[in-house]
Amino acid sequence: MKRREFLRTAGVTAAATTIAAPAIAQSMPEIKWRMATSWPKSLDTLYGGAEHFCKRIAEMTDNKFQITPFAAGELVPGLQVLDAVQSGTVEAGNTALYYYWGKDPAMAFGTVVPFGLNTRQTLSWQLAGGGLDLINDMLKDYNCHAVMGGNTGAQMGGWFRKEVKSLDDLKGMKIRIAGLGGTILSRVGAVPQQVAASDIYPALEKGTIDAAEWVGPYDDEKLGFVKVAKYYYYPGWWEGNAQGHTLFNLAKWNELPKSYQHIVNSASHDLWTWVMAKYDIVNAPALKRLVNNGAVLRAFPQDVMESCYKVTNELYAELSKNNKHFAKLHQSMIDYRGDSLAWNQVAELGFDSFMMRMRTRS
Amino acid sequence: MKRREFLRTAGVTAAATTIAAPAIAQSMPEIKWRMATSWPKSLDTLYGGAEHFCKRIAEMTDNKFQITPFAAGELVPGLQVLDAVQSGTVEAGNTALYYYWGKDPAMAFGTVVPFGLNTRQTLSWQLAGGGLDLINDMLKDYNCHAVMGGNTGAQMGGWFRKEVKSLDDLKGMKIRIAGLGGTILSRVGAVPQQVAASDIYPALEKGTIDAAEWVGPYDDEKLGFVKVAKYYYYPGWWEGNAQGHTLFNLAKWNELPKSYQHIVNSASHDLWTWVMAKYDIVNAPALKRLVNNGAVLRAFPQDVMESCYKVTNELYAELSKNNKHFAKLHQSMIDYRGDSLAWNQVAELGFDSFMMRMRTRS
Repeated sequence: MKRREFLRTAGVTAAATTIAAPAIAQSMPEIKWRMATSWPKSLDTLYGGAEHFCKRIAEMTDNKFQITPFAAGELVPGLQVLDAVQSGTVEAGNTALYYYWGKDPAMAFGTVVPFGLNTRQTLSWQLAGGGLDLINDMLKDYNCHAVMGGNTGAQMGGWFRKEVKSLDDLKGMKIRIAGLGGTILSRVGAVPQQVAASDIYPALEKGTIDAAEWVGPYDDEKLGFVKVAKYYYYPGWWEGNAQGHTLFNLAKWNELPKSYQHIVNSASHDLWTWVMAKYDIVNAPALKRLVNNGAVLRAFPQDVMESCYKVTNELYAELSKNNKHFAKLHQSMIDYRGDSLAWNQVAELGFDSFMMRMRTRS
Repeated sequence: MKRREFLRTAGVTAAATTIAAPAIAQSMPEIKWRMATSWPKSLDTLYGGAEHFCKRIAEMTDNKFQITPFAAGELVPGLQVLDAVQSGTVEAGNTALYYYWGKDPAMAFGTVVPFGLNTRQTLSWQLAGGGLDLINDMLKDYNCHAVMGGNTGAQMGGWFRKEVKSLDDLKGMKIRIAGLGGTILSRVGAVPQQVAASDIYPALEKGTIDAAEWVGPYDDEKLGFVKVAKYYYYPGWWEGNAQGHTLFNLAKWNELPKSYQHIVNSASHDLWTWVMAKYDIVNAPALKRLVNNGAVLRAFPQDVMESCYKVTNELYAELSKNNKHFAKLHQSMIDYRGDSLAWNQVAELGFDSFMMRMRTRS
């Protein structure tokens, strides 16, 4: 079946099954929706989070409200989830908003911006600091309503064939990285590359690219990068965390009974804790295995970090000039972050750094 | 009314209103339950989390399942919530399990143990690492089933009238601190004191006690400690986080329709993110205000930290010898923690520490 035909057919099916019950006032109507996701099934924490979300909603409604998740490419390509929800091809989508930064760079604030927030700051800023409201203001233009998705935690900086000892070493380096991170790296002389997940390994092996970033130890391990690019850099300063969202077609969302909207909201927090708990459980032993298998951990040199930080802030100032959503979201994040960093440096860092020190003592 | 009479009356009322609908198979019966909490309303993040949880459950069930929260002392004293749920005086309770360490020191693993886990580690260990299952195994003996409650994040070490420059300064110092933290401080020469919240301020003012720990900047600020004990120590190594739980009387829990159990589970994660997001929003500016009002931030000296760490591990070895639950929970936590600390030290600490450094640059 050609893709266009498939989409048309799928669209019709979705419309026909949306409300199986008669359209009378009914507190728990039977609803069957489809959710496109941006995740291949191999990203089993992110895709698993989407499955968990749908399962919970079904369980809470005695299977009356069923949302079926689909992996990237099953209904629409992984990077076209927003478009599919916007057009109503699917009622829901689980994705990362920064994939759509080409439509509007402000989309990146939904997921993460380089040198932005860490995981807890993102949760706090989006839920209690007005961040998610600003994101939803922007998403109205895309006919979408967003609730929280999963978070990966701080990501790694990726796999490099050669050591990066200073900013000079980055010049001319071909690095597989997308989004704002790629823009920033290009401004300090690197050459960002777009490479699909399945093509990264052969590209690194042949030397077509010099480095590639993916997610973190658990997801990276499955792609085998350690065999072809042993220097494993941190931190992924362009992804101090990465926050997913579940999008709903706005008209469809507004048709839901209030109780179902509340069920979706609580399920979104259930998804958040499920994904975070799982990533933290699986990343730790994966890092150990990677190091045992030859990964050489390296921190980005200070001059790389500071130069990229400077270029990042210049870029944000430029984007804020002509983009109202970007300016608002950036200012809101900055206003939140200052005091937050100071507070995190006291009790949280004080506790964590002592425990880390003691670990290596025994 | 005498307390005993009140409890008896309250119990009868609860029983009579538990299942308002006839006892026939019904997917959404009308249920009205009561939830005792350990929080005064002044702890508005913790008590607010309990309210949020109950509100969400009502919203998800079109008000068919209503749980009414009560502040500490309204139904039962704040430290007797477990007992009230165990006996069925109330169907549910929102509390911190370490309040019941006198019944079994292993209870502390539910909330936090000194030099234990941080917030994300706790979420991950309890949800995905088997911790909550072990806690529920233990709670069966108390006729209870637990789901996650809120988390405060890493707490502060408290307010001291004088500086603590070394371990010697702690000797003989009267410190308001409960639980395992108090036991450990007594082993290094301090004198732990039990003082009710409302009595802490006058005791510090008169010098009846030398120091007091409470929660963190936002909650501490309300009690005005900065005026009578200006040295504000960190980290609260006995509370690298503090995880609450909602307890259900096991028989009552088992009577719930499966869909209501799932709704409670998702609401518990909604509560977790709500409380964490709020604490992170309110603590940061509160710390700034406290410093502006004269609080002098001090890190506990390294010899205090290391001596207490050593004593703590000795205590855990002793308790593990004769207490099966303690031994199991301790081993499970230790098994989880090693790799976790190593992983957190890479991407998370790498990102956070750079951002903290940059904050003070501009």
